[in-house]
Amino acid sequence: MKKHNFYAGPSILPQSAIDATIDALKDFAGTGLTLASVSHRSKEFDAVMNDTVAMFKELLNIPDGYSVLFLGGGASTQFAMVPFNLMRKKALYVNTGTWSSKAIKEAKMFGDVIEIKGDDFFSIPKGYEIPDDIDYMHITTNNTIYGTEYHEDLDINVPLVADMSSDIFSRKIDVSKYALIYGGAQKNLAPSGVTFVIIRNDILGKVDHKIPTMLNYQTHIDKNSMFNTPPVIPVFTALQTLKWIKANGGVEGMKKRNTEKANTLYAEIDRNKMFKGTVAKEDRSLMNVCFVMNEEYKELEKEFLDFATSKGMTGIKGHRSVGGFRASLYNALELESVNALVSVMKEFESKH
Amino acid sequence: MKKHNFYAGPSILPQSAIDATIDALKDFAGTGLTLASVSHRSKEFDAVMNDTVAMFKELLNIPDGYSVLFLGGGASTQFAMVPFNLMRKKALYVNTGTWSSKAIKEAKMFGDVIEIKGDDFFSIPKGYEIPDDIDYMHITTNNTIYGTEYHEDLDINVPLVADMSSDIFSRKIDVSKYALIYGGAQKNLAPSGVTFVIIRNDILGKVDHKIPTMLNYQTHIDKNSMFNTPPVIPVFTALQTLKWIKANGGVEGMKKRNTEKANTLYAEIDRNKMFKGTVAKEDRSLMNVCFVMNEEYKELEKEFLDFATSKGMTGIKGHRSVGGFRASLYNALELESVNALVSVMKEFESKH
Repeated sequence: MKKHNFYAGPSILPQSAIDATIDALKDFAGTGLTLASVSHRSKEFDAVMNDTVAMFKELLNIPDGYSVLFLGGGASTQFAMVPFNLMRKKALYVNTGTWSSKAIKEAKMFGDVIEIKGDDFFSIPKGYEIPDDIDYMHITTNNTIYGTEYHEDLDINVPLVADMSSDIFSRKIDVSKYALIYGGAQKNLAPSGVTFVIIRNDILGKVDHKIPTMLNYQTHIDKNSMFNTPPVIPVFTALQTLKWIKANGGVEGMKKRNTEKANTLYAEIDRNKMFKGTVAKEDRSLMNVCFVMNEEYKELEKEFLDFATSKGMTGIKGHRSVGGFRASLYNALELESVNALVSVMKEFESKH
Repeated sequence: MKKHNFYAGPSILPQSAIDATIDALKDFAGTGLTLASVSHRSKEFDAVMNDTVAMFKELLNIPDGYSVLFLGGGASTQFAMVPFNLMRKKALYVNTGTWSSKAIKEAKMFGDVIEIKGDDFFSIPKGYEIPDDIDYMHITTNNTIYGTEYHEDLDINVPLVADMSSDIFSRKIDVSKYALIYGGAQKNLAPSGVTFVIIRNDILGKVDHKIPTMLNYQTHIDKNSMFNTPPVIPVFTALQTLKWIKANGGVEGMKKRNTEKANTLYAEIDRNKMFKGTVAKEDRSLMNVCFVMNEEYKELEKEFLDFATSKGMTGIKGHRSVGGFRASLYNALELESVNALVSVMKEFESKH
């Protein structure tokens, strides 16, 4: 039976990227050696790193004056690196859920945090004031756990920092509106173990405190992400994913795919008498579709999960802090998988 | 032509570990999904993490009261994490080369560093005093660039911290003599992207300053290295390497293999009129064999490198800070590869 991979992350990647990684683990770039055992200083891997940076710049149309970095430690390490490198006194953080909350916790070690938060995490806060005297403003563009997403780039007058772990390359963005974009790559890009950073070079060098070498973005800019040994396999797979994105219409092509998939699933959630969405409609994520059972069917939750699992749906259990269900529809997921899930929902409805 | 992989890192791994990783990238643990796209919270990956920790404890005979962690960021991040977590006022660092120097640089951000250093890096400093009032002493057990190695565990009265990036699992160690052992895994263990830490739990919680969450060992102890998404593929491959070590006699078996390989190569270096070793004999590394051409053959260095490369020797160019040649003989390298290199050296000698 075909498995449909709705995991929130690590999550589905293009089959072509997996196949190319397997080939490289057998023989990397004609070296006669496995990708796992080739020096990162070899000319063959150096080319992979340079090509990956170049593809980032091409697909996201990154302007001059920005660097693209590939680091270890995950987005969770970025929660500390961002204030370590940028916080002089004060920053504004929009709290849209679990990941923003973690970022805020780290920022408070380095300065004052103005926190913007709604009544709950089922919509994105809007209509707040942004002071002129802050060092930066931080947002999480897509919230994997609550299923909300910013659908437009913000237009503000202070440096904007965005955690795009779970929606990078899912739509066109105007990078010039951001001072720094970061994310764990294990959603739309690569196996876990690599973190991307897109940074406007001129925002660095303004803090007074010392920064440990590995936590200093400048270290990695100066060495093209090769100050220390980078996570070789995840970077290689990322490059293959980027090639697949390019061959499938770039970020505009991804947006089209993702919109069709999300519309299909949200339409069924809204139509089916047993289910309901959890998020304000205008803020619904195209990446992570969260839904629960309507009150009168609440006791059937486990039965539905078991039924869907028996039909090959994998990873649709909602995060423990929200409950219910979550289907993650990252770039590489095919519409066929969404259609399969919709069929399961219809079939379950017809049984009850 | 067979390639012989003498890279210093990332470097050779057991073929069985590579094969198992390829299999898992096709279908991981019968999930019907690739290892690259399975949630780290799945029961299948949870088992991998637990088994990897258990194999570490078994193969290194790690006593109770220690934790084994798998983190991102490389040993270079540990250079800062160690003093962040352990330095109250003062630590002693033995400087045995490039990596120790980098560790010392980070430690100086957090307190006073007493630095022990020889006249050069071609031997390991000995016969110095260790004050009682230091927070810890730090050593680098094997020095990939200069080719020196500690062959015995030190017996001291202060907490001992060791960077074992390049000789972990190459010989039996008495873990109880160490407070903390860390290393990048990309030599004897796994593809790049995962860092191991073996830590005695009771050394934590003694510093006054705040520690960013991801840099705090306690965070990762509390969550069994799953506070954030771990580097899934490298951890999986590490487990396969550990199984290979166990099947090949454990760390004692590795020591036997490694001694035979190193003795074979050093014997040829000492015999062959064209070459000489760079390191004091008692401190010669079993992992990284550094050698240069004798003065009268100096101008043949490039010719030898090209000749050896044409015979399938890969990665034997010495590090730019030492020059000459370096053959890394990590666990997985077969004696056959050392014999091939020795033949090349003999053949080159007979031509001149």
